[in-house]
Amino acid sequence: MQRFEILDKDAMGRICRIETPHGRIETPTILPVINPNIPFIRAEEMKKFGAQAVITNSYIIYRSMREEALEKGVHGILETDMPVMTDSGSYQLMVYGDVEIKNSEIVEFQRHIGSDIIVPLDIPTPPDADYATAESDLRITLEREREAKELLKGAENLLAVPVQGSTHPDLRRFAAGEARKIGGDIYPIGAVVPLMDAYRFRDLARVILEVRSALPVEPIHLFGCGHPMLFAMAVALGCDLFDSAAYALYAKDDRYLTVYGTKKLSELNYFPCKCPVCSNHDPEELRRMEKNERERLIAEHNLYVSFQEIETIKQAIKENSLFELVEKRVRAHPNMLAGWRQVKHYWELLEKADPKMKRKFLYTGIDSLYRPAVRRHVKAIKNVELPEEVLVSTDFGIYANIYLRPVFGPVPAEMLETYPAGHAEIPEEDVVEEEALKAASEALMELMNSHPEKRFKVYVSKVWMKHLQNLPPNGELNVLS
Amino acid sequence: MQRFEILDKDAMGRICRIETPHGRIETPTILPVINPNIPFIRAEEMKKFGAQAVITNSYIIYRSMREEALEKGVHGILETDMPVMTDSGSYQLMVYGDVEIKNSEIVEFQRHIGSDIIVPLDIPTPPDADYATAESDLRITLEREREAKELLKGAENLLAVPVQGSTHPDLRRFAAGEARKIGGDIYPIGAVVPLMDAYRFRDLARVILEVRSALPVEPIHLFGCGHPMLFAMAVALGCDLFDSAAYALYAKDDRYLTVYGTKKLSELNYFPCKCPVCSNHDPEELRRMEKNERERLIAEHNLYVSFQEIETIKQAIKENSLFELVEKRVRAHPNMLAGWRQVKHYWELLEKADPKMKRKFLYTGIDSLYRPAVRRHVKAIKNVELPEEVLVSTDFGIYANIYLRPVFGPVPAEMLETYPAGHAEIPEEDVVEEEALKAASEALMELMNSHPEKRFKVYVSKVWMKHLQNLPPNGELNVLS
Repeated sequence: MQRFEILDKDAMGRICRIETPHGRIETPTILPVINPNIPFIRAEEMKKFGAQAVITNSYIIYRSMREEALEKGVHGILETDMPVMTDSGSYQLMVYGDVEIKNSEIVEFQRHIGSDIIVPLDIPTPPDADYATAESDLRITLEREREAKELLKGAENLLAVPVQGSTHPDLRRFAAGEARKIGGDIYPIGAVVPLMDAYRFRDLARVILEVRSALPVEPIHLFGCGHPMLFAMAVALGCDLFDSAAYALYAKDDRYLTVYGTKKLSELNYFPCKCPVCSNHDPEELRRMEKNERERLIAEHNLYVSFQEIETIKQAIKENSLFELVEKRVRAHPNMLAGWRQVKHYWELLEKADPKMKRKFLYTGIDSLYRPAVRRHVKAIKNVELPEEVLVSTDFGIYANIYLRPVFGPVPAEMLETYPAGHAEIPEEDVVEEEALKAASEALMELMNSHPEKRFKVYVSKVWMKHLQNLPPNGELNVLS
Repeated sequence: MQRFEILDKDAMGRICRIETPHGRIETPTILPVINPNIPFIRAEEMKKFGAQAVITNSYIIYRSMREEALEKGVHGILETDMPVMTDSGSYQLMVYGDVEIKNSEIVEFQRHIGSDIIVPLDIPTPPDADYATAESDLRITLEREREAKELLKGAENLLAVPVQGSTHPDLRRFAAGEARKIGGDIYPIGAVVPLMDAYRFRDLARVILEVRSALPVEPIHLFGCGHPMLFAMAVALGCDLFDSAAYALYAKDDRYLTVYGTKKLSELNYFPCKCPVCSNHDPEELRRMEKNERERLIAEHNLYVSFQEIETIKQAIKENSLFELVEKRVRAHPNMLAGWRQVKHYWELLEKADPKMKRKFLYTGIDSLYRPAVRRHVKAIKNVELPEEVLVSTDFGIYANIYLRPVFGPVPAEMLETYPAGHAEIPEEDVVEEEALKAASEALMELMNSHPEKRFKVYVSKVWMKHLQNLPPNGELNVLS
């Protein structure tokens, strides 16, 4: 059986199908966390918000209802027919430092209760661990993953092979490569919750990008990421699956999720949302409610807004506007901007994944310069045939061989109607970011340098002057008044 | 009676209360357009989406149901107790070039049918009209407005005094000044629909800013603006009221509104929304529906998303994060970025309106440099007392008198915990936009120039070097390794 299929791609994001014993999951998606003891919102109800699968903790089940679970299975316990992923207790390992179970036991247990996606007992090394610790933890994790793979030989359950390595980029990449050799169905990136809690999105982006570098197509799960603020960025960096305990944890504290951050209920005068909860209540009503009822409603809102963001991302992938979406979303916080901008160090990875043909290119800021379409254009125009004397102009009203545009730089007249440069909407040169003029100017100079035998007569408006000071000797610079 | 009260302010946006004979309207808000002949969605139903008032066309009522309206009143016709604004037929004048009614007649008629907000028969001069035409049209408009004011002496109805002037900034400003002299309760900006349809948001922003320059506190209505994409920007530029025929017009064409633009239903695979419509249907279901039912549901979604955006904006005003919201929203389209960036030419206007104390400053891009907080900081630090030798550093780990930060430039050590510079989140200097370093560097040099008697020892990391090449003679530049 083909367990995994990519249907659509954009940036490094994808829409994929994963087949499990209990049916198909279409990614990107979120697995809401269901507490087997106190089902706050029941698994079946999760369908209403858009959930296709859920996740629960096999270690808690093992400790508190082992017999019942062995009899009924995990689907019986949760009373659902949806795919169920089970975590292993490694979260508890991170929090309490110890768990009273062996890897083989918890893997076998997950298999016996019919988990659709089994997670071995990996060691979640926290951020900033010293290298030796991260390395020795990783050695144990990999051993346990190999053991799990052995134990599940012939089983129909899917195996998740977590990737650890703390905040050491090379260890994360190594771990991902080793995980791939072991061969899992899903690759969760582990122990990143402290990075997200501390808004360390630069480190988070690095970790994801390193993992994706060693796992170029496989499904990646970002463990513990349940805030809708992060989904678009994480998907565009290559993540497919998320899990959310956040919907409930935040609700418990009267915290209300939005794609641009968290709001305290006490500070809300208006709901920035029209989900079925928010269109029927106002913040003051919720504040006056009894705690239980309020918590339930906030959790419902939190789930609606989380799945709304997933659908927004999927739609953006379908229409190849994921860059445009992410570049808006990362403006939720300056640290997200800084995180996303790490992609500039991984352009080859991005280049390999991102589709070559799209309908539109809408500029949003300097982040748009990192899109592969820009680099591809600069490369492609080097092969365009040029006359002996090349007329370059920033004014579209003048006849020229090449027009100079912010972002893309030189655009040959015959490419003015083709993607990307010809389908690009960019603010005018007097209001666009300096970097957009600089990148364009550099692209022009690169083109001139690659055609030293041609002469370039360049006519530009004043704002371009300072970026074209060092024009190569085969060029002549003129200012348009 | 106090008819107008400002409750909260942020950027040039406000939350206001307007008292009408049928009760209070809290702005910003949208008046959904109700067609008196074919009420697609009835006025009373509009409350469900968040509407507080509606608008209808008195000219259509006059032509098709005059007697009934004189008897029942406009509230009887629309079967609602909400405030009702009535347009005069000037839209028809724009579309058909002529209407068969006199200003005095339609004003009297609006009064007789009990309109809460009466609009005279102004002349909507389209964009790009030649100056003489725009001027002579405006002369007629102003005469009619004076006539309306006369006719309504002692009436309890509110009077809207539209502002025309085509795309001539000085005429718009003059028109607004004259309108103010006439004295209305609401000032609609007219004839901007063609600008919005053509995505000419630079021109739109100019028009709004010129009008606001001459009407610094009065309620402004942006006539014909019903796309939620534009609301945040328009509010931040000073608009209080909107009307929406868009919800229905777009629905008729199977077009689905979002805050980042319009989607065709045929191109939607997923709904990027969880409003009561979108959480109960998927796009394929809607496509299979009968036209009438589909149109109704899309219109409902369009209303939900429009009022959702209004509530989002109001919440942003309450928490003083309207700049942060707008700077995200204008990334819907490069022309919106270009439009919003016109505020840099109106900084005095912005400075006067924007509150001085806020809780946070989150940087989103070069637009954040235009916020008054930045300019105020640069001005304020000039009065800080400095030692003979001033240590300036970009490294917070080094003891210094002044720290150099992107955006704000010099931040005296004692101001590191105070708003704005001390409460600002800004991406690190290696990923921030060039303009943020340049503005900061210029602010430092300005400070140095205003203290020629002091010596400045400046320690900066490498990225700052090129912006500090022209350090004044009282400075010494050192690179931190």
